[in-house]
Amino acid sequence: MGRVTERRKVVRIRDGVVSSRPDTLVTEEPLEIRLNGKPLAITMRTPGDDFALAVGFLVSEGVLATASDLRNVVYCAGATADGSNTYNVVDVQTAPGVRIPDITLERNVYTTSSCGLCGKASLDAVRTTTRHPIADSPPLRVTPELLAVLPDRLRASQRVFDRTGGLHAAALFDEAGELLDVREDVGRHNAVDKLVGRALQGGDLPLSRTVLMVSGRASFELAQKAVMAGIPLLAAVSAPSSLAVDLAAETGLTLVGFLRGSSMNVYAGEDRVVLRAAAAQG
Amino acid sequence: MGRVTERRKVVRIRDGVVSSRPDTLVTEEPLEIRLNGKPLAITMRTPGDDFALAVGFLVSEGVLATASDLRNVVYCAGATADGSNTYNVVDVQTAPGVRIPDITLERNVYTTSSCGLCGKASLDAVRTTTRHPIADSPPLRVTPELLAVLPDRLRASQRVFDRTGGLHAAALFDEAGELLDVREDVGRHNAVDKLVGRALQGGDLPLSRTVLMVSGRASFELAQKAVMAGIPLLAAVSAPSSLAVDLAAETGLTLVGFLRGSSMNVYAGEDRVVLRAAAAQG
Repeated sequence: MGRVTERRKVVRIRDGVVSSRPDTLVTEEPLEIRLNGKPLAITMRTPGDDFALAVGFLVSEGVLATASDLRNVVYCAGATADGSNTYNVVDVQTAPGVRIPDITLERNVYTTSSCGLCGKASLDAVRTTTRHPIADSPPLRVTPELLAVLPDRLRASQRVFDRTGGLHAAALFDEAGELLDVREDVGRHNAVDKLVGRALQGGDLPLSRTVLMVSGRASFELAQKAVMAGIPLLAAVSAPSSLAVDLAAETGLTLVGFLRGSSMNVYAGEDRVVLRAAAAQG
Repeated sequence: MGRVTERRKVVRIRDGVVSSRPDTLVTEEPLEIRLNGKPLAITMRTPGDDFALAVGFLVSEGVLATASDLRNVVYCAGATADGSNTYNVVDVQTAPGVRIPDITLERNVYTTSSCGLCGKASLDAVRTTTRHPIADSPPLRVTPELLAVLPDRLRASQRVFDRTGGLHAAALFDEAGELLDVREDVGRHNAVDKLVGRALQGGDLPLSRTVLMVSGRASFELAQKAVMAGIPLLAAVSAPSSLAVDLAAETGLTLVGFLRGSSMNVYAGEDRVVLRAAAAQG
C-alpha cells in the first residue's frame, strides 16, 4: 500500500527560531467495514493490514471466532463517483452457517461502540458472545522480570513511531517474552484488531498462550478484545479504566497496568504473575 | 455524580517488592446518546458533564449549532430491568424546526464514526455541515511564547489525572492564554465534546476567539470537532495525523502539534502564529 506515512510541509519553531521543512505524518483514513455486503462500521485507521483489521474487528464483535468462519475478504470497487477503488472499503464474507447478528440501528449502535447499555450489561454481552473463554491449561505464568522487558521490546519493534510519533502499537509475546507479532495504527483498538485478525487468518485463535502488550492505556474496549481472542494476559504502559478492571476480574483476564521499568500494577488475575513469596509485603 | 474515580485493590510491584494496596482508577462507563428519543450513539466516557457531552457530540455531528437549537436534555429512566435510572442514557430534545438527520443504518454508521467514506468525502461533509465557518475578524494572533505556556496550564488544571494517570484533557484558552474551561475524560473526543457542549449551553458558540488545547494527539476527529465549533486554533501535545492536517488546511484551522516547552510545529494556518521575521530561516 505504501500509505502508512505522508509528507507535509511544516513550520517548525524551536526556541524562537523558525524554519520551514517537510515532516512525516502518520496516515489516517477511514475504513468502511462491510459484512456480507452490508455496511457495518467505519473506523479511522492507518492503511495497511486492512483485511486483518476488518477480520479482527469481527472477532471482537463476536461474528468470527475461527478461520473456518471466514470465506473471503475483498476490497470493494466503485467506492468513488468515478468507480475507482479507494481501498477504503472492505467486505468480509462469512462461511455458510455462520450466524450473523441483526444489522439494525440498535444492533449497529452497540456494534460500533463495542459495548452494551451499562457496565453490567456490557460484561454480560462479552461473556455470552466469546467463543474463546480464557482457558490456559496449565496456566500461563510470567515473572515480573519478563513483563518488565516487554515495553522496550515493543518500542524497538515499532518502525513508524520513531518517524511520526503518532502511532499506537500492540504486540503479542509468547510465554518466554519473544515477540510474535506487532501492529501499529493511529487507533489503539485498530492495532489490536489487526493482531487478532492476522491470528484468525493464520488459524491461531484462541491466543491462549500469549501476552498482549499495548502502548497506551487499557480501556474496556481493549480488555474486551483480549477476552474475545482468548488472550489470558493484557499489559499496558499506562492506566486501566475501572470497567477494564471489572471485565478482567469477571472473565479471568490478567490485567497489568503502568508497566514501566521494573514497576507495574496487577489489577486482576494475579495468579499468572509469579510473585516471590519472600518479597511479599502488606 | 461522584463517579469520576473508583477504588480497586491492586498488587503493586516495585523492583521486586510486592505489596497490596488500594488504587484510584478513572471511571469508564458507556453513555447512550438519544436524539428526540431515538438511540443515536454510545460512547465510553467518564461520568460527569453528561448533558454537555451529549450536546457537544450533536454539535460535532451538525445537529446543533446554537443554544436556540436545544430544547431540553434529560436522563432517561427505566434503562435497567427494574426500571431504575443508570444515569447512562441521555436524551437530547431539539427545538421545533431543527432539521434532524435521517437515522438510518447508513447515516448512523457515518454519524458514530464522525467521518465520511474517504478522506475527500469526509472533508466535504464537514464543509457542508458546519454552521460556524472559522471567521475570526480581526484574525486571532498568538505568539509562540503564549502557546508554549498552555501545556503547563492545561496540566495544572487537571484534577483527576494526577490521581489516576488515565484521563485525557481538553481546555479552552482565550487570546491572552487565560484558561476558560477544562474537561477530562477517558476519551479525548469526549473531553472536547464536553467543552463544546457547555459552550453551546452557555450561548458561547461559535468559539471564534479561543484556542483549543488537547493533551494527546490531533486526530481528524478532533480537528473536525474544532471546526464544527468555529474554533480557529487547535494545539496538541503530540502528533497530528495526515487527515487532521488536510482538514485544517481546507477549513482554515490553525493546527499546532508537538507543543512541548518552547518547541512546536505549525501544520496549517500559520498566519495566526506571530513569527518574528528576524528569526525566520529556511
